[in-house]
Amino acid sequence: MKGEIITIGNELLSGLVVDTNRSYVAGRLMTAGVIPSFMTTVGDDEGAIADAVTRAVERARVIVVTGGLGPTPDDITSKSIARALEKRLILDPSAERQIQARYKKRGINPPADASRQALIPHGGRVIVNPIGTAPGYYLVVGDKIVFVLPGVPEEMRVMVDQGVLSILETQGDADVYIVRRILRIFGMTESQVNERVKDVAYDGRRVTVGFLPIFPENHLTVTAHSSVSKNDADQIAQETADAMRAALGDRVFGRDDQTLEAVVGGMLITRGYTVAAAESCTGGLLAQRLTAIPGSSSYFLRGVVAYSNDSKTGLLGIDPALIAEFGAVSGEVASAMARGIKESSSADLGISITGVAGPSGGTKGKPVGTVFIGMAFDDGGTCSVRSHGYRFYGDRGRIRLISSEMALEWIRRYLIRGPSKNGEM
Amino acid sequence: MKGEIITIGNELLSGLVVDTNRSYVAGRLMTAGVIPSFMTTVGDDEGAIADAVTRAVERARVIVVTGGLGPTPDDITSKSIARALEKRLILDPSAERQIQARYKKRGINPPADASRQALIPHGGRVIVNPIGTAPGYYLVVGDKIVFVLPGVPEEMRVMVDQGVLSILETQGDADVYIVRRILRIFGMTESQVNERVKDVAYDGRRVTVGFLPIFPENHLTVTAHSSVSKNDADQIAQETADAMRAALGDRVFGRDDQTLEAVVGGMLITRGYTVAAAESCTGGLLAQRLTAIPGSSSYFLRGVVAYSNDSKTGLLGIDPALIAEFGAVSGEVASAMARGIKESSSADLGISITGVAGPSGGTKGKPVGTVFIGMAFDDGGTCSVRSHGYRFYGDRGRIRLISSEMALEWIRRYLIRGPSKNGEM
Repeated sequence: MKGEIITIGNELLSGLVVDTNRSYVAGRLMTAGVIPSFMTTVGDDEGAIADAVTRAVERARVIVVTGGLGPTPDDITSKSIARALEKRLILDPSAERQIQARYKKRGINPPADASRQALIPHGGRVIVNPIGTAPGYYLVVGDKIVFVLPGVPEEMRVMVDQGVLSILETQGDADVYIVRRILRIFGMTESQVNERVKDVAYDGRRVTVGFLPIFPENHLTVTAHSSVSKNDADQIAQETADAMRAALGDRVFGRDDQTLEAVVGGMLITRGYTVAAAESCTGGLLAQRLTAIPGSSSYFLRGVVAYSNDSKTGLLGIDPALIAEFGAVSGEVASAMARGIKESSSADLGISITGVAGPSGGTKGKPVGTVFIGMAFDDGGTCSVRSHGYRFYGDRGRIRLISSEMALEWIRRYLIRGPSKNGEM
Repeated sequence: MKGEIITIGNELLSGLVVDTNRSYVAGRLMTAGVIPSFMTTVGDDEGAIADAVTRAVERARVIVVTGGLGPTPDDITSKSIARALEKRLILDPSAERQIQARYKKRGINPPADASRQALIPHGGRVIVNPIGTAPGYYLVVGDKIVFVLPGVPEEMRVMVDQGVLSILETQGDADVYIVRRILRIFGMTESQVNERVKDVAYDGRRVTVGFLPIFPENHLTVTAHSSVSKNDADQIAQETADAMRAALGDRVFGRDDQTLEAVVGGMLITRGYTVAAAESCTGGLLAQRLTAIPGSSSYFLRGVVAYSNDSKTGLLGIDPALIAEFGAVSGEVASAMARGIKESSSADLGISITGVAGPSGGTKGKPVGTVFIGMAFDDGGTCSVRSHGYRFYGDRGRIRLISSEMALEWIRRYLIRGPSKNGEM
């Protein structure tokens, strides 16, 4: 079933705001068997909105429109849709009650024109907005269905999940079911991934396999189609993803929307390990990622950002002579940082990062992008350490990001495989 | 002059990737007097691309198309554009040389079908891609101009800045010049901003003032139009922005694309101050933001993420009795954290954050979103401290983000105004 998405707003057209609604709606529509074939963005302009809606209704079965449902005069989406579909605007009593109730709940008096938001095209049926004041609605026009939702991302998302998807389900005439699985990989290039999965057999008529680089990760996408049922599509997608995962081994760290920090956090909780982090060039990014996960206080004990050499000595007990001999960016100092944070925190694992994030600070021997990771762990009653140097590429932000990713990956590998003999985890 | 932007790619249509190219192109086109009125996204489908281009050429003067210029068979943008504009595809020798040179520079053999990327519609003139292999091009069709660029964001951006904008300039028939200024504000609501700026006089026929909430900040946008020259538009925009800024006072922390951490970092460098950070609920986010700025090693000495109570004692010397009496989330502990990090690091400023980021951990007295900020500073030879409690709203990510923002804002206020008498900076 073909779909179209229309997003409305001058702030989108002028480039002030990145439109994240479109990709969200698209991903969710796919799960309901609706395949987006066009997406259009127009400004707060009645003629342009009406034109876009008219064209969409010609081309697609399911149309989702977001934005321009607020109470101010430049919110003209409903008026434009009424024009495109040749409907009158009607004050919907249930929508009006919702709006009044929402303002009351927040303890503020509704603005004079609040009920403008309850004016919807004749025949429209309200979709409840559980968060904000602007209700959404949908219109059935012949065999087409037009959904109209507010543009505030949080509101729009809930209304897609709780409203649009279940309404589409009751329509019950999906001609294709689509399920997507994503395998998340770090540390392999596209050609390395291809080499591993090239002999995996799958039904090419029903499954599409794609490759998506999302720095610093690579994602393998498996999209399955079925004309029978959602369960059928789900099964094909799952079987193919499982086969790919088997071929890729433990280089696949997660699935679908699992982040590396969420995977590592989950493993730390399950296995009862605690961790502490000592960072230099990443400046707290590793600690921030490890603590972004709810419940992280059960595994994350402490972090230090030892930016100056003084702080490496003061916070981590690193011998200044070691820094003088090998340099702050070295495997020796990475090891000492990992050992220092482990011993001072009594964590099971100490993890460290020291490097040159740039743009300045590089030297011939240690150019921008040189990064050492270190890890300290218990080894039969004593504390052992590993460290390894990498050369990363990109700007400051990218080098910091891939460094923190690699440190998280070291924790993951240690928890899966135990310590390496020496060098890289 | 009306513009349209067409982005191409199945990964955009299926919602796998958020399209950031559109907003970038839109913002840059505005500076060249081209006002985007439609944006369309289509998949790797010849008919759909040709249809979108045909419609765009009917409606707009300047069309920018991105994506689908790679060497693989699903890259069919050029073929589709040739069809829409009724041109033949021609192998462009200069494009072919560029492609070969790019592969050579990278030291890899060009794939067999590399020169597919040099097939461009007849009459197209090449736009150099200084980073990647796929060249771009533009076509003049009557009084319309169609730009075609690769979809890789880094490549596309450089080619817009170095190619598209200068080509538009040489066309020299802009009928309007548009300049936008943004004032960035933290800590005022929309109505507070309105209250301050409502009496600021400006030429409403030539200037549009808008309000844009970008959590946790609020941005005031000033867009000026001129039919005379870019300088003229620039001057009107600047004058209006200056008048607004005067009315808003030092609540405006930055302009245009300046982040709060960049502004604070710049002030720390200029005034020769050093800073150290002690964080609990933000888990390193404050340190990460302070060190995201190139050259931050001159002002950032160290950070600690004292997540456990143990680490608050071990890293910051906080008396366990203080934590027992007031709780880890309290003004008293925030003050002690700030003092502890200042004294151990010898930084000029110690800044601290402790709070409940959620989703769990809230209590009746200290619900999720309760956050205390603390600051320690030199005060005539002794170390003084301030702390203040806030109640923030949102999910874990939002509470962490606004907490780090408030801590940065405290540093900015201190550097502008000096210490507050007591309580909030």
